[in-house]
Amino acid sequence: MTDRQGNPSGEDSLIARYFKPLATDPGAFDLTDDAAILKALGDDIVVTTDAIVEGVHFLSDDPPDTIARKALRVNLSDLAAKGAAPAGFVLTLALRSADDVWLTPFARGLGEDAGLFGCPLLGGDTVSTPGPQMISVTAFGRVPPGKMVHRSGAKPGDRVVVTGTIGDAAIGLDILKGGAVAAALAGDVAGREGLIGRYRVPQPRNALASAVRDHAHAAMDVSDGLAGDLAKLCAASGVSAVIDARSVPLSATAATLLARGAVGIEAIVSGGDDYEILCAISENRFEAFAQAAELAGVAVTSIGTVIAGPSVPRFLDNAGSDIVLPRLSYSHF
Amino acid sequence: MTDRQGNPSGEDSLIARYFKPLATDPGAFDLTDDAAILKALGDDIVVTTDAIVEGVHFLSDDPPDTIARKALRVNLSDLAAKGAAPAGFVLTLALRSADDVWLTPFARGLGEDAGLFGCPLLGGDTVSTPGPQMISVTAFGRVPPGKMVHRSGAKPGDRVVVTGTIGDAAIGLDILKGGAVAAALAGDVAGREGLIGRYRVPQPRNALASAVRDHAHAAMDVSDGLAGDLAKLCAASGVSAVIDARSVPLSATAATLLARGAVGIEAIVSGGDDYEILCAISENRFEAFAQAAELAGVAVTSIGTVIAGPSVPRFLDNAGSDIVLPRLSYSHF
Repeated sequence: MTDRQGNPSGEDSLIARYFKPLATDPGAFDLTDDAAILKALGDDIVVTTDAIVEGVHFLSDDPPDTIARKALRVNLSDLAAKGAAPAGFVLTLALRSADDVWLTPFARGLGEDAGLFGCPLLGGDTVSTPGPQMISVTAFGRVPPGKMVHRSGAKPGDRVVVTGTIGDAAIGLDILKGGAVAAALAGDVAGREGLIGRYRVPQPRNALASAVRDHAHAAMDVSDGLAGDLAKLCAASGVSAVIDARSVPLSATAATLLARGAVGIEAIVSGGDDYEILCAISENRFEAFAQAAELAGVAVTSIGTVIAGPSVPRFLDNAGSDIVLPRLSYSHF
Repeated sequence: MTDRQGNPSGEDSLIARYFKPLATDPGAFDLTDDAAILKALGDDIVVTTDAIVEGVHFLSDDPPDTIARKALRVNLSDLAAKGAAPAGFVLTLALRSADDVWLTPFARGLGEDAGLFGCPLLGGDTVSTPGPQMISVTAFGRVPPGKMVHRSGAKPGDRVVVTGTIGDAAIGLDILKGGAVAAALAGDVAGREGLIGRYRVPQPRNALASAVRDHAHAAMDVSDGLAGDLAKLCAASGVSAVIDARSVPLSATAATLLARGAVGIEAIVSGGDDYEILCAISENRFEAFAQAAELAGVAVTSIGTVIAGPSVPRFLDNAGSDIVLPRLSYSHF
């Protein structure tokens, strides 16, 4: 917008200053139009949207560049799990004020990730709010027609596979909130920082997207907790699963905390913010999938088996007994 | 999400109950997957995103069905101005609580408009917030390749044309806020309600989209104020304009208020929330455009002329003198 002298208003100046450099796709028209153009190029366009809210998905004193990265990465994680290649995103920013000290690192982090993941900014909306700040992203990906990987499709006998490690982010959040785990890691600064980093900056597995598309019967990203998200995948596929809790991949720090009794396996498998890929792979495709994952530099671990039936998936302990989960995952309401 | 017994959590139950009925497109997968598929069908996909915030774009006691309609319609208005046919939308809802009394009419209004405008729900995200409620919509439209209508492209000699009437919504908001206009309309309940209705429920001109695409050199929707939005269009096109303020189309109620001195022309041309289309049409296309508009049932009015030069557009009064505008439009920052 322009004032009487034709100078840009605060809002337009903010967009031009911070976000135009991120709008590298020709379809973004340098953010000077009312809409963007997304070319499908013969592919299906995969659309996903996820918002993060101050005090809920990030903390007020989280570094702004990590908030930006998280806002984009939680969406990139969905694209990865669906087997899609990133194509771009739009951003809605609800801010209390146009604060340079906050916006400069926010835009820098967002731009770095947009470049890193090949997912340019296509457009957005910036609004003022008196309340908690919120960043809503709608991200677009491309898959060959009909090739999006669904939650449904898992079959009895499939392996249940997850990427990376589970539980780190939930423990990191507990530390940031001053929980009991913080004391158990008092002397291990690197371990603490590693867990906090996993909460603040997810590591979406976009490098694995094509392998997921080529090999998985079903997939989704683990965002609300492994147990709950597996229950969703099983429900959508009309199957159940049995998980060997000992197989759930843990970081060294999480494994140490678990061994000391500072965290329980229940918290690890029902905590949120993992942003790993959970998928069902048939036995005869697992070897090829694992090789593709190795080439992509993404760790994958087989943690159990899909079985027939409508039951909620079981998590078994060392003795083969069911682990009782007080809740499966995070829910907003 | 499911609880230990496999029952959906509040969040998933909310989505299934209120929003699944709106997800009529097969690419929405009944909102049971992590992403949707948008088929381009050989067209360019037009992407636009606009959020509305409680206390900023709508009032806490606005009827929930009108809030839903406004959230979708402000985006439909962008698609119309770009010459695009609606294809679907995704929704981010930041709510204080999952309140049936609010959600039932909200979802009903949203569903009715999704049907009315042929713009099905494709996906979304529902998050909790302690702060003001916010609804963010990203809407998708289709245009034949390369045919999106831009802000740039207006040429000296083009007519400046607007749809519908200007200023009603801004006056309606003033009434809702207990402004001075309310008293001037004390006896005119229908007039008051008409203006308030224009604030709460925009009337996007999607019926005119194909005529805009066929005839306009440049177009955008008027959302932040006619004067400011015209300045944006002119700046993007590298031109200026001269507007005859007497030609700006007014509703009967607004015209009466203007004649009585209860509102000024400055407030009318710089108030926001019009959601009309502003476009530049060459003289030799105007007749065809006007005929197409008549067939579409949308009033269009020629209000001035595009001229060469970099100046901010001028608004002239009855005497041909420049009207001084304290501000051109609304800005969030």
